[in-house]
Amino acid sequence: MADFSIARLGTRNDKKIFYLVLDGLGGIPFPGRGKTALQAANTKNIDALLPQSTCGLFDPVEPGITPGSGPGHLGLFGYDPRKYQIGRGVLSALGIDFSLGPDDVAARFNFCTLDHQRNITDRRAGRIDTDTNVRLVKMLSEQIKLKGNVELFVKTVSEHRGLFVLRGKGLGGRVSDTDPQKTGVPPIDPVAQDAQAKKTAELSGSFITQAERILSGEERANGVLLRGFDKMPDIPKMHELYPLKCGAVATYPMYRGVARLVGMEVLPPPADMKATFVMAAANRDNFDYLFIHVKYTDKAGEDGNFDWKVKVIEEADALLPILLDAKPDVLVITGDHSTPAALRQHSWHPVPALLFAPETARPDYLQSFDEDHCRVGGFGRMPLYVLMQLALAHAMKLEKFGA
Amino acid sequence: MADFSIARLGTRNDKKIFYLVLDGLGGIPFPGRGKTALQAANTKNIDALLPQSTCGLFDPVEPGITPGSGPGHLGLFGYDPRKYQIGRGVLSALGIDFSLGPDDVAARFNFCTLDHQRNITDRRAGRIDTDTNVRLVKMLSEQIKLKGNVELFVKTVSEHRGLFVLRGKGLGGRVSDTDPQKTGVPPIDPVAQDAQAKKTAELSGSFITQAERILSGEERANGVLLRGFDKMPDIPKMHELYPLKCGAVATYPMYRGVARLVGMEVLPPPADMKATFVMAAANRDNFDYLFIHVKYTDKAGEDGNFDWKVKVIEEADALLPILLDAKPDVLVITGDHSTPAALRQHSWHPVPALLFAPETARPDYLQSFDEDHCRVGGFGRMPLYVLMQLALAHAMKLEKFGA
Repeated sequence: MADFSIARLGTRNDKKIFYLVLDGLGGIPFPGRGKTALQAANTKNIDALLPQSTCGLFDPVEPGITPGSGPGHLGLFGYDPRKYQIGRGVLSALGIDFSLGPDDVAARFNFCTLDHQRNITDRRAGRIDTDTNVRLVKMLSEQIKLKGNVELFVKTVSEHRGLFVLRGKGLGGRVSDTDPQKTGVPPIDPVAQDAQAKKTAELSGSFITQAERILSGEERANGVLLRGFDKMPDIPKMHELYPLKCGAVATYPMYRGVARLVGMEVLPPPADMKATFVMAAANRDNFDYLFIHVKYTDKAGEDGNFDWKVKVIEEADALLPILLDAKPDVLVITGDHSTPAALRQHSWHPVPALLFAPETARPDYLQSFDEDHCRVGGFGRMPLYVLMQLALAHAMKLEKFGA
Repeated sequence: MADFSIARLGTRNDKKIFYLVLDGLGGIPFPGRGKTALQAANTKNIDALLPQSTCGLFDPVEPGITPGSGPGHLGLFGYDPRKYQIGRGVLSALGIDFSLGPDDVAARFNFCTLDHQRNITDRRAGRIDTDTNVRLVKMLSEQIKLKGNVELFVKTVSEHRGLFVLRGKGLGGRVSDTDPQKTGVPPIDPVAQDAQAKKTAELSGSFITQAERILSGEERANGVLLRGFDKMPDIPKMHELYPLKCGAVATYPMYRGVARLVGMEVLPPPADMKATFVMAAANRDNFDYLFIHVKYTDKAGEDGNFDWKVKVIEEADALLPILLDAKPDVLVITGDHSTPAALRQHSWHPVPALLFAPETARPDYLQSFDEDHCRVGGFGRMPLYVLMQLALAHAMKLEKFGA
């Protein structure tokens, strides 16, 4: 018997879905303010959508589980992030627009400080500046030679952070981290976790040895720590799963990369939020689905800057008419996870979502779009990956299941 | 790539989780009263926590499924009770503080009445009193001899109920019940359900034959019916799953036993509810997680004594400041299942839960803590085993999932 599958139910039409993702949107009341940022913000344009919308609270992974950006976005795009995991190395590559191929193994690396006994004294090399990083990466790229028919890429990410990529046939991705996550001990040797990863581990060990020799004259950044070895995950593309031509409008490389990972066409990076919305609206007819990413709600939350988060939400609300004028048939407004300014980090709290669909929604007539009202919204509380099939349904892009 | 697992996300800190379990807490409106016991009770101390709490309704097993005490508590501790089942024999052993080892097979037995054709006339031997039970168990323990290198334990539980344990190498646990669950027919012979259980079935048959001979002079209790053969289930310990040192404060043996089964350190039995709360508060710094069990909400429900249930809840509420003064970072108040006085038994109705976490909760601002308000609480409706990961999250004991 056939499994239930969205892919089998998909049907094409000319209806348009916009996914406006305010990164880290959800929150908890900020100490002394008694409100979340979404509650404190004046969101009159968003609230005006409520009579034609259904709302709810969505768990990016599971209740109580705090997602990274990878799992959060996979959930948004309809993937169960417990099934499809993106390694840190791969995410670092996506984050600098490095195009990983199927034969590549990627790892994130940090420059670190080693003492004369090779014990780690600083796992981040005193957070060297990015210019220093660029200079050191150039040295490593030019001087390190690896055996076998393997290509090495060493790339700057920022400050002490870098990307390490090996490209060649037969390189397995399952290699253990060399970062012991503490100081006072030497780096751990890279160890293959299966037979296919043996060559990867050997070459990584050689990279580390040569890097320490080349960097031996540096005061702070005289070593490297590698973690999150991985290959590109085998994720089905959105256009294979849904009856959609998908486009992405995002400024930050990581989100552009995740969008590319699931097969979206990624438009050129817009300069700011207004340019983001204008680009999305202008591309309405070129796609069935547009992922529209706003970063600074998350950044403000991670900085613990409640007022900034309020301002970013208000800016998005003020610019919303640009998107509305493009007349999407379905407009989803949500986040990939919560980032409460009170906690200064991603959190597990479910993210509020609004699905505006003037022709097909069963409205829940909430008074305001925020965490507290969404609690009693028409969608109740669901895993985030279900939101995508709700969006498809409201755009009449799913056929009836069964006769 | 690694599977999703709570165990991999755990991180230790000094935050404290208290789980106050009012056994059988949930209810339905009592006839003529129009309220549940939790609604009728004055719970001003609990209600004062609501502005810093999130609430919800939790299904111990699945909607519509009434749990026994074993599954109810496994759910509380974060185990899916459909995956981990505790046999009746094992639960009986836990209930009398009998320490089962890995080579033991346990079954629950009832004394019964047999007629001269060996047909059962009373499956509970006229509910003989416990003193009689003790006298008969002594006779069986002293006189029955089993072949092979196997040790026999026969123990009184109460009235007609007893515990049967075989200890020895190579004893399988899968033996069928001998209780036909009706009268007018003879007991069923114990049958091995797999090859490993053959010896267990033979020895159990020998036990039954000898018991009937020894008890042949008794008027009522002249036979035994065995059911729920089982070995100790292979359940991972809480400290293997979570970054927690776990302690239990409970008066009743069964709950002490279930706590021991999942690896908690069980403190000496307190005399009453006040002593229970005082002991928990005094042990705040010795554990990361404390399971605090109150029995009489359930007992009152099973007795159909609505007013008593209200009183027990009010007593817990009045004593709550003892726990609050110990400043837990997370305090969960819930039950292991519902026991409506109207039904005089455990029920399937989801159990209300409150999670108080002053620093990390997204409050749902309910007016009162009861079944009806929890329905629109921030957690919505979830399986009970999810509550544990919510508690861990709110105590900041889970790392971010994915990069």
